[in-house]
Amino acid sequence: MKVVSVRDFKLQRESDYGTPEQNETVKAVVQAVRAEGDAALLRYTEQFDNMKLESYQLRVPEDELKAAYDHVEPSFVTAIRAAADNIRTFHMKQKRSSWMDLQPDGSILGQIIRPLKRVGVYVPGGKAAYPSSVLMNVIPAQVAGVPEIVMVTPPATRGKEGIDPYILVAAAEAGVTEIYRVGGAQAIAALAYGTDSISPVDKICGPGNIYVALAKREVYGVVNIDSMAGPSEIVVLADDTAQPSFIAADLLSQAEHDEMASAVLVTPSQSLAEAVSAEVERQLELLPRRDIARASVDSYGAIIVTDTLKEGIEVVNRLAPEHLEIVTEEPMALVGQIENAGAIFLGPYSSEPVGDYFAGPNHIIPTNGTARFASPVDLDDFIKKSSMIYYSKEALLRDGETIMELARREGLEGHARAISVRLEQEQKQEKK
Amino acid sequence: MKVVSVRDFKLQRESDYGTPEQNETVKAVVQAVRAEGDAALLRYTEQFDNMKLESYQLRVPEDELKAAYDHVEPSFVTAIRAAADNIRTFHMKQKRSSWMDLQPDGSILGQIIRPLKRVGVYVPGGKAAYPSSVLMNVIPAQVAGVPEIVMVTPPATRGKEGIDPYILVAAAEAGVTEIYRVGGAQAIAALAYGTDSISPVDKICGPGNIYVALAKREVYGVVNIDSMAGPSEIVVLADDTAQPSFIAADLLSQAEHDEMASAVLVTPSQSLAEAVSAEVERQLELLPRRDIARASVDSYGAIIVTDTLKEGIEVVNRLAPEHLEIVTEEPMALVGQIENAGAIFLGPYSSEPVGDYFAGPNHIIPTNGTARFASPVDLDDFIKKSSMIYYSKEALLRDGETIMELARREGLEGHARAISVRLEQEQKQEKK
Repeated sequence: MKVVSVRDFKLQRESDYGTPEQNETVKAVVQAVRAEGDAALLRYTEQFDNMKLESYQLRVPEDELKAAYDHVEPSFVTAIRAAADNIRTFHMKQKRSSWMDLQPDGSILGQIIRPLKRVGVYVPGGKAAYPSSVLMNVIPAQVAGVPEIVMVTPPATRGKEGIDPYILVAAAEAGVTEIYRVGGAQAIAALAYGTDSISPVDKICGPGNIYVALAKREVYGVVNIDSMAGPSEIVVLADDTAQPSFIAADLLSQAEHDEMASAVLVTPSQSLAEAVSAEVERQLELLPRRDIARASVDSYGAIIVTDTLKEGIEVVNRLAPEHLEIVTEEPMALVGQIENAGAIFLGPYSSEPVGDYFAGPNHIIPTNGTARFASPVDLDDFIKKSSMIYYSKEALLRDGETIMELARREGLEGHARAISVRLEQEQKQEKK
Repeated sequence: MKVVSVRDFKLQRESDYGTPEQNETVKAVVQAVRAEGDAALLRYTEQFDNMKLESYQLRVPEDELKAAYDHVEPSFVTAIRAAADNIRTFHMKQKRSSWMDLQPDGSILGQIIRPLKRVGVYVPGGKAAYPSSVLMNVIPAQVAGVPEIVMVTPPATRGKEGIDPYILVAAAEAGVTEIYRVGGAQAIAALAYGTDSISPVDKICGPGNIYVALAKREVYGVVNIDSMAGPSEIVVLADDTAQPSFIAADLLSQAEHDEMASAVLVTPSQSLAEAVSAEVERQLELLPRRDIARASVDSYGAIIVTDTLKEGIEVVNRLAPEHLEIVTEEPMALVGQIENAGAIFLGPYSSEPVGDYFAGPNHIIPTNGTARFASPVDLDDFIKKSSMIYYSKEALLRDGETIMELARREGLEGHARAISVRLEQEQKQEKK
C-alpha cells in the first residue's frame, strides 16, 4: 500500500450523472409508467428482468414471506434479529416530540413533528443486495412511526430464481408492510406516481444502480429521495499504540466493497505506516475478494504519514470521510476536534464492520466529502415538521403596528391590511 | 373569487427547470468562476450588473454596514429587532444536544450534533429583496452555532445605487459575519468553489431568480443547498364562526405576492363562501398591488365548498399547503387531523402575516405540495450529525461471531476477518 503526501491526496471524486443515453432511457421509462401505470411496469419487467408477470403477481404474498424463513439458516435469523434489536434501540433514542411554547398573553407557538405516511425502500437485485441495508433503511422509518413501508426489488436476486430469501427475512424482521417484485427505474416511477397495484409514497430511499439513481433524481420534488451514496470510504487515524494487523484488516474490509472504495491510514508514526503496509499485502492475498480489494487499494488507498497527530486530525477534517476509526492512546480525547466524519469508531475493538452490521447506528452514511454538511440516515429522514401559531387577540393588539411597519417596508400593503382589518374591528367594538 | 369543485382543484404546479439557454449560461458561469475565481466574478458583475469593481471592493466594509442605520427609520430598526428577538427565541427551542448511550459492558454509542462551519445566504437584488427573509435565513444558522455566515447580494438593490440599507440593517441584526456585493449564478459559484476573495461554504440558502436557482442545483453535492421554493400558497379552512373580512384580507395578503401565488378558502359554509367572495372583490380593488392580486385570484384562487368540515380537512391534507389557517369554532381540536401543512395558523387573530414577519416560526416553508415530506427551515438545516461507536473488548468478544455470520452471509469475508483478527489475538493471549 503506497505512502503518499497529504497535499497530493484527495478522497473526493466526481459523482456519476450517467450517460446521455442512460438519462434518456430513464426519462422514457418514468414517463411511460406515469402515463400507463401497471401496463408499463409489466412491460419493462419483461424487457429488463426477463420476467412475464400479471398485475396480481406484482405484490409478494404473505405466504411467500413466511416460506422464506425455511430457506435460511436459523443462525441467520438469530443474528438478524439481534442486529435489528440493536438498530431499533439506537434509533429509538432519536425520537422527538412535538412541542409547544405557551405565552402568558394566551398565544401558543409550537412545532408539530409527525412521521411520513408512506415510504418506499428500493432493494437492488444484483451483487449489492444486502440484508443489512434492508434493516438500515427500514428500521428508522418504522421507529419514526411511518405506518406504510413499501419495499420494491427486482423479481430475481443475483440472477437466481425469485427474490433472495435472506432479503425477504430481513424485510419481515425490519417491519416492511408491502413488498413488490419490480425493480429499476420503473419501480421508482411506480413509487413516485403510483399505479393500480402500487400506491404512491412520500419518500423513496435505498441504493440501486445508475438507472435507479437517475430515476430517483427524476422524480425528486414529486416525492422526497435520500442522498446518492458514492463508493464506500474509511480513514483510520492511528498512532504507535495501534495493532498493525487490526488496522490492515479494517482497511481491507472497506477495500473489498468495490474497486472504487477508498481505504486510507493517516498516522504520525512511520513505523506503524510500514507495518500496516506490509500487513495489508499479507492479508490481501488471503482474501476471497482480493482482486477487488487490490484494485481499490492501488487506485484509492493510501497511507499518509503526518508530522504530528494534530496534523493528522486536520487531514481527517479535510477528507471528511464516511467512516473514521481513531485508534490512538486516548481516542475519546480527540473526538471534539473531529469536525467532519460520518461515523466515528473509537479504540481498538470498534472495527468498522461492528457498525456495518450490528452496533445500532445507521450504516448509511454521507460519502464523497459530504460529511461536511450531511449526516447518517436517522429518524429525521422519516419525519416532517409543521410550525403552529395560535396568536391571541391581546398579542395581536400589542404587536399589530410593528407587523404592519415591517410589511409596508417591503411594499406589501395587503399584508398590513390583514392586520389592520382586525385592529379596526377591535376599535369599533371598544367604542360600542 | 370563483367557487370550484374539490375534484377539479389542484394546488400543485410544475416546477421551473429553466430553458436550455438558461441552463447553458449557468453552467458556463459556474465553470468560469470555478476555473478563474475573482477574475470571472468581476467580469460577470460588470456584464450582468453593470458595475465595475476591483477584488478589494467585493466585500462590504464594516463602515458601510454601520452607515446603513442612518438611512433607515428608527421605527424600522425597532421593529426588525423585535422580530429578530422572537425568531431567535423560537429557534432556540429547537436546540439539540449530542448524546451518549453508556452500556454496562463499557461500550458507548452516541450521536454528535454540530453546527455547519460556514453558510452562504443569497439575498436577491430585485423586487423580492425582503429584510424579513434575511432574518429567516440567517437567524436559524446563527442560533445553530454556525460561526461564519456569509451574505451575497447584487451590488445594487431594486435598481438603486448600492445595496438596500434595509437589507444591510437586517443582515447586521440577524448576525451575518461577511457581506459580498456579488449576485447571480456567479455568486453561487463563488460560494461553492471559493475564490481569492470569498472562501467556500458548506451550504447555500436563500431565494433568487431562475439563474440563482439553476446555479444552486448545479453546485449541489459540492455544497448543500436549501429546497427550491415555489410560489406562495395559503389555504384557509373556516366555518360559519369566521369573519368574512378577516378571511378575505388573509387570502389577498397571499395573492399580492405574485401572479402565481395561490389563495384558497375551504369551507362547509355556503354563506361564508359567498360573503368571502364578495369581500375579496371589495378589498381587492383597494389594494396597491391589485393587478398582481387579481391575476393570482383569477388563476390560482378558489373557494371550495365541502359537504362537511371533515371533508374540508381531507381537502387540506390533499393540497398539503405551505400556509394553513384554521378559523373554526375550536381550531385546536382539528390540528391533530391535519397531516400535511407547512405552517398552521389557528383562530381569528393568527393572520398569516403574523408568521411572515414576527411571531417566531420560520417563514420559509415547503410549497407545491411538498409539505407531505418537507418541513419549514429550522435548526436542523444548519447542523450535521456524526454517529459514534466505542465498542469494548467485552462487547466484541460477545458479539463477534454474530457479526461474522452476517458479514459472511453477504459474501464479505474481509469484513468477517476484521473481527476474527481481533478474536484470535484474544484467544492467543488467553492461552499465555
